Amino acid sequence: MSARGVFVTFEGIEGSGKTTQARRLSARLLTKSVSHIVTREPGGTPLADQLRSILLAPREETVFPETELLLYQAARAQHVRGLLLPALEDGKAVLCDRFYDATFAYQAHARGLEAETVGMLNRFASGDLVPDLTLLFDLPPELGISRASRRGAADRIERESLDFHRAVRNGYLAIYKNDTSRIVLIDASAPEEEVFRKLQETVTERFGW
Amino acid sequence: MSARGVFVTFEGIEGSGKTTQARRLSARLLTKSVSHIVTREPGGTPLADQLRSILLAPREETVFPETELLLYQAARAQHVRGLLLPALEDGKAVLCDRFYDATFAYQAHARGLEAETVGMLNRFASGDLVPDLTLLFDLPPELGISRASRRGAADRIERESLDFHRAVRNGYLAIYKNDTSRIVLIDASAPEEEVFRKLQETVTERFGW
Repeated sequence: MSARGVFVTFEGIEGSGKTTQARRLSARLLTKSVSHIVTREPGGTPLADQLRSILLAPREETVFPETELLLYQAARAQHVRGLLLPALEDGKAVLCDRFYDATFAYQAHARGLEAETVGMLNRFASGDLVPDLTLLFDLPPELGISRASRRGAADRIERESLDFHRAVRNGYLAIYKNDTSRIVLIDASAPEEEVFRKLQETVTERFGW
Repeated sequence: MSARGVFVTFEGIEGSGKTTQARRLSARLLTKSVSHIVTREPGGTPLADQLRSILLAPREETVFPETELLLYQAARAQHVRGLLLPALEDGKAVLCDRFYDATFAYQAHARGLEAETVGMLNRFASGDLVPDLTLLFDLPPELGISRASRRGAADRIERESLDFHRAVRNGYLAIYKNDTSRIVLIDASAPEEEVFRKLQETVTERFGW
């Protein structure tokens, strides 16, 4: 029986470079023959991907904060049970682009839903799965948005105001201050190479990667 | 300013005739010029209808009970805030085919999720909206399934086992015993005309319809 795999989450505002950094870490793990998967939230199974499209599509209908929270959690419940837990039990490492810290930052801090409710739903949806390490890529929202806008058409969340993205960043920083052993803060305004070097140091120290 | 409208929910297992009875009551309200809407869960707004399709479509991927519960609640959160509350505040009566009692009967009693969690989510999604009257159409599941099967291709829920539908019925009966002032039990194994007569007596007595 193989040991349970390591679960690493990548967090940060839009344009923080977390997706690029997850891909770079995956490439490094390939060269070291560390068996792993790369996945993201919302998404990761056919049903969760359908929910991702629904969540991110710009639409005329108002999406209420409560609806949004429940949809993210539905996608998470499916992702955790259909992909993450089986992979981890199989001894694979999991690199996950966003997880429940994102829900705290976006739905509680930025949308204003009660932190207690968001926390309860996070636990219910994730079945008490906790990341072994969370990499928080931090940068000023102005810079993040300007980077994200280079990727083309903005989705429903990217279209939010600068104040919204500021609230998300502050939410992430509050979560970090509360859990500095699980979460490692990385200055994502630095050049990509430098950010990756910091990431590499962290995962080498923690997991020998 | 008009008074808040009356909120009536129609509950029962598959094939209990609740949809037909809601339509008949709507026809009666039209002749009496009672301003109202007829709606159903999951559904009732474009987004909630998309979630309905996702929930009811037969699929190869296992849909975990936690995912299912969160999806029903997401659809409800949208339906309540986007359609039900505005209609009720506008003084319209609302006839709703299934509401949160269905979630108790299906997700807690039949799927086995904790009643406390289901209750908390019911309150969060419905924003504490409570039906003024719930009509529970009760009949043996064998009869319900045989009626429902005449409608054509079965959806993902209709395809469940007879034991599942028995658990749903027992769930509904347990809810009824707990709240006999809000919920009126109607024997739905009787002929359609007789069922409607009983319904009519109830709404005439309660609302003068």
